[in-house]
Amino acid sequence: MKNSMFASCIQACSNCAMVCETCASACLREDDLKMMARCIELDRDCANICALAATLMSRESEYAKEFCAFCAKICRACGEECAKHQADHCQKCSKACVECAEKCEQMAA
Amino acid sequence: MKNSMFASCIQACSNCAMVCETCASACLREDDLKMMARCIELDRDCANICALAATLMSRESEYAKEFCAFCAKICRACGEECAKHQADHCQKCSKACVECAEKCEQMAA
Amino acid sequence: MKNSMFASCIQACSNCAMVCETCASACLREDDLKMMARCIELDRDCANICALAATLMSRESEYAKEFCAFCAKICRACGEECAKHQADHCQKCSKACVECAEKCEQMAA
Amino acid sequence: MKNSMFASCIQACSNCAMVCETCASACLREDDLKMMARCIELDRDCANICALAATLMSRESEYAKEFCAFCAKICRACGEECAKHQADHCQKCSKACVECAEKCEQMAA
Repeated sequence: MKNSMFASCIQACSNCAMVCETCASACLREDDLKMMARCIELDRDCANICALAATLMSRESEYAKEFCAFCAKICRACGEECAKHQADHCQKCSKACVECAEKCEQMAA
Repeated sequence: MKNSMFASCIQACSNCAMVCETCASACLREDDLKMMARCIELDRDCANICALAATLMSRESEYAKEFCAFCAKICRACGEECAKHQADHCQKCSKACVECAEKCEQMAA
Repeated sequence: MKNSMFASCIQACSNCAMVCETCASACLREDDLKMMARCIELDRDCANICALAATLMSRESEYAKEFCAFCAKICRACGEECAKHQADHCQKCSKACVECAEKCEQMAA
Repeated sequence: MKNSMFASCIQACSNCAMVCETCASACLREDDLKMMARCIELDRDCANICALAATLMSRESEYAKEFCAFCAKICRACGEECAKHQADHCQKCSKACVECAEKCEQMAA
């Protein structure tokens, strides 16, 4: 049976994946697009890795925990990059990434 | 800007994707596995299509609405199949599919 | 059993998905990034939709053909946008998109 | 620039992802479905992890190499499980998994 730690990590990963997709698209509409290139790059990887982490946990896959350890790393990197930018979508994304990193680190521990 | 209809459809699709992944895995552990084959088959497709629907909406993609119309169809099919089975995971999945179908139909309208 | 039309469409979709991912990343490193924003946006959607088309066909899903019809549309749009740009990665991507669109249209017919 | 080692690992991962999807679907149609449950379970994870490995390499992501090390592990596990079954789809899948594991191990080295 899936316990509450699993459920809250799945939720954090699913949310982070969607927020990263939104952030990447919003970055692409910014005037100073050049400044956002690194953010878009990390958003893309973070979105896909979080989505797969949520999927593996939902399946109760034996690979879920190890995957969460990996997911935490990209979330930390993406969270740090997004924190540098003032735009709302970046600030929101940074928050989602940090929250997801914390949940994934607990899961992997 | 993303309105509340978008937000609730993204949430329904993300949730349905995860519930379908859980259902497929739980079906694989059932004693009468043969009876669950069709359910697993639909769960797999429904999970991936819902996940991509959520992704396209999060991006505010111009293809999101048309994709939601397609997503609604597979959700209806998966919801009907899951409704036939007594297992908790199937009943829960059927509910998530029907809810997702309704949100996607509104989005596509 | 999977026939040669299926195999060649799966191959075209898998290839197009990867070429679109490469094109989006290469666009992000271009000097005139602003000019590439629309290309990146379409590359992202096209990559995910082609990847799922290949997945559904590999599964022999009953939804594969209808999905290919949808996939062809985004491939046509992405192929046209990429064709406007001189960069090698865009020219290569445009070619992969057109090839994929043709295979998907045959599959959907 | 993408060298030939990258190209052949992307190809092996894309191929393995599709072959695992096909194997899972074919397993679901086997008479002795119970015997195939573990195979289907590993096929599902292996397919998604290989697909993301191919995606990250196509993007020239800085996370690609570490991801390939992880991908190699699940390919080894899936390759061993599939090798136990006589069905053509399992034998073909086992071969694709071993080939993919080898390429990913070289990439990660």
